[in-house]
Amino acid sequence: MRTIEWNSTTGELRIIDQRVLPGRLEWLTCRTPESVAESIQNMAVRGAPAIGVSAAFGVALAALHSSGRTLEAVRKEVVAAAELLRASRPTAVNLAWGLKRMLAAAAQPVQSVAELAETLVAEACQIAEEDVAINQRMGAHGAALIQDGDTIIHHCNTGGLAAVDWGTALGVIRTAHEQGKRIHVLVDETRPRLQGGRLTAWELEQYGISYEVISDNAAGYFLRTGRATRVFYGADRVAANGDVANKIGSYMLALAAHANGVPVYSVFPISTVDLSLAHGDLIPIEMRDASEVLDLQVGGQPVYPAGAHALNPAFDVTPHHLLTALITENGIVYPPFHLNLSKNVLLTPAA
Amino acid sequence: MRTIEWNSTTGELRIIDQRVLPGRLEWLTCRTPESVAESIQNMAVRGAPAIGVSAAFGVALAALHSSGRTLEAVRKEVVAAAELLRASRPTAVNLAWGLKRMLAAAAQPVQSVAELAETLVAEACQIAEEDVAINQRMGAHGAALIQDGDTIIHHCNTGGLAAVDWGTALGVIRTAHEQGKRIHVLVDETRPRLQGGRLTAWELEQYGISYEVISDNAAGYFLRTGRATRVFYGADRVAANGDVANKIGSYMLALAAHANGVPVYSVFPISTVDLSLAHGDLIPIEMRDASEVLDLQVGGQPVYPAGAHALNPAFDVTPHHLLTALITENGIVYPPFHLNLSKNVLLTPAA
Repeated sequence: MRTIEWNSTTGELRIIDQRVLPGRLEWLTCRTPESVAESIQNMAVRGAPAIGVSAAFGVALAALHSSGRTLEAVRKEVVAAAELLRASRPTAVNLAWGLKRMLAAAAQPVQSVAELAETLVAEACQIAEEDVAINQRMGAHGAALIQDGDTIIHHCNTGGLAAVDWGTALGVIRTAHEQGKRIHVLVDETRPRLQGGRLTAWELEQYGISYEVISDNAAGYFLRTGRATRVFYGADRVAANGDVANKIGSYMLALAAHANGVPVYSVFPISTVDLSLAHGDLIPIEMRDASEVLDLQVGGQPVYPAGAHALNPAFDVTPHHLLTALITENGIVYPPFHLNLSKNVLLTPAA
Repeated sequence: MRTIEWNSTTGELRIIDQRVLPGRLEWLTCRTPESVAESIQNMAVRGAPAIGVSAAFGVALAALHSSGRTLEAVRKEVVAAAELLRASRPTAVNLAWGLKRMLAAAAQPVQSVAELAETLVAEACQIAEEDVAINQRMGAHGAALIQDGDTIIHHCNTGGLAAVDWGTALGVIRTAHEQGKRIHVLVDETRPRLQGGRLTAWELEQYGISYEVISDNAAGYFLRTGRATRVFYGADRVAANGDVANKIGSYMLALAAHANGVPVYSVFPISTVDLSLAHGDLIPIEMRDASEVLDLQVGGQPVYPAGAHALNPAFDVTPHHLLTALITENGIVYPPFHLNLSKNVLLTPAA
């Protein structure tokens, strides 16, 4: 099952609405760049690879449904759509990467508005297809790091839902599971948006992989008592020195693993790497609305009274020295990351 | 306001039901040791000092409402009540400490069943009064560690609700606030039971202390970016070497503070210290029901489907090397804790 589908008959993008899982499996239909940007902003679609691909289709939609009659007019709309989509979320760099590819495609010489739209739809479909192949390559590389009998703590959601299909960190776990390795996953529930509890647990249930949800606070207990043997998560932006911005809580998890000698792996496509940033503290961290922390009920009763105050940073940075290895579609990157990550990124992968 | 009240007219214990705060302020009335044990087990009353005091009253209730006619018969019921109460929660040692004091009082020579009951009620009231005085002494000692302008991350609830009145770690913050120091508290919501979000935020609102709730995952972000300058929490049991068992998540918080040079303080009465345990890994850690993790709704919809799996350790251990100082009613204890903690415990405090 793909989480992002292009309907070439209607010229519409369909995406799974991740906000209502696991209770309901519902699809949203986007016909405009605005609706794609809104779906990214409100996290109906989330996960760095998934938002990169969605944004690419958002640009294609601008051309496909434009009322502009000249190439110049439509190209202007395409550029405006890319700007709108770029502003929808600041941390994951895959968004900018996908938009850059689309703008390059839009600049190719074409004869007509129809041909421009066709070119952009083809490019977005190509990005989506590549994403699936890239995920499978990451899975194959990373699975070598998982041993039979491992208990893996996983943060946030990095499965099929976070990409077009298969997943990044969870894709590695899936590949190892398909290789017959016995794996148990401790699923960080991942407050405040609970992507682990809502999405990762749901995916693991579907794949038949053994799991238990834990509160994020409990990871340290399982690491210190020797019950967790690996930590895996994704990335939203990776700096040139290997510092990783990922879902809030990743940093504390990496600290606890590192303090107990448990390996920590971050899995991401090279489109997540931003070699223009020397280190992770330069990565912009999105602050989201307090309501994401405060909208919570237990036993049917609200936890927080009206007027409660909250702060909600959506990501944090894991400094590279806490990471054991990074996994991309080009292979496993070991320290020193400031040397080896750029080499890995610049590799031309074998087909 | 006291969170635990003895009604000497009716011979009943009244405790605030902390499970329904902040939505409602409701009191539970306990007439039997069984009802006290149940209130401790289901966390209607929680916080190490509060459960120590409640359990003491539970023992008094056994004698007061006994139908036994001989001293021997009633003393047997008292011992059985203490055993029942001791089993209600395993980690906080204040429970065992309070029961030990009550059993010693029960062994005093008395002339009648009525006198035994009177002695036990008096002892429990004495423990409660002492708890308030001890909290205020901890506040006075600890407030010296807080500077004007501090931003303090606080885990779980250690305020008036966790004790008879005033509080332990939150009591220190209250004392500093009353001294006129400007303080901002980042309130760890403290999954899974959300004692921070439910109780600490509610208390801070009442005291007029500035605060914002954060998901536990976000503490690392605020520590690494220099926005949090102190970490304070309580303790449920402290080993002879200064290792601290406290609410799940304390360990990861201490790791993140320590990694960023931010001081970490644990505040507790000496009744929390267990010198019989050489180190913290010997402290029994309570595993609670998975439903405490899984009973959660967002936007009125359940987060977890029926049949989801979860694990729920209620405490973890912070190794002493991550702690900057420990604060008891006898003063501030600095490393080396294996020498200085026992000295502090054995001090006879000045009246």
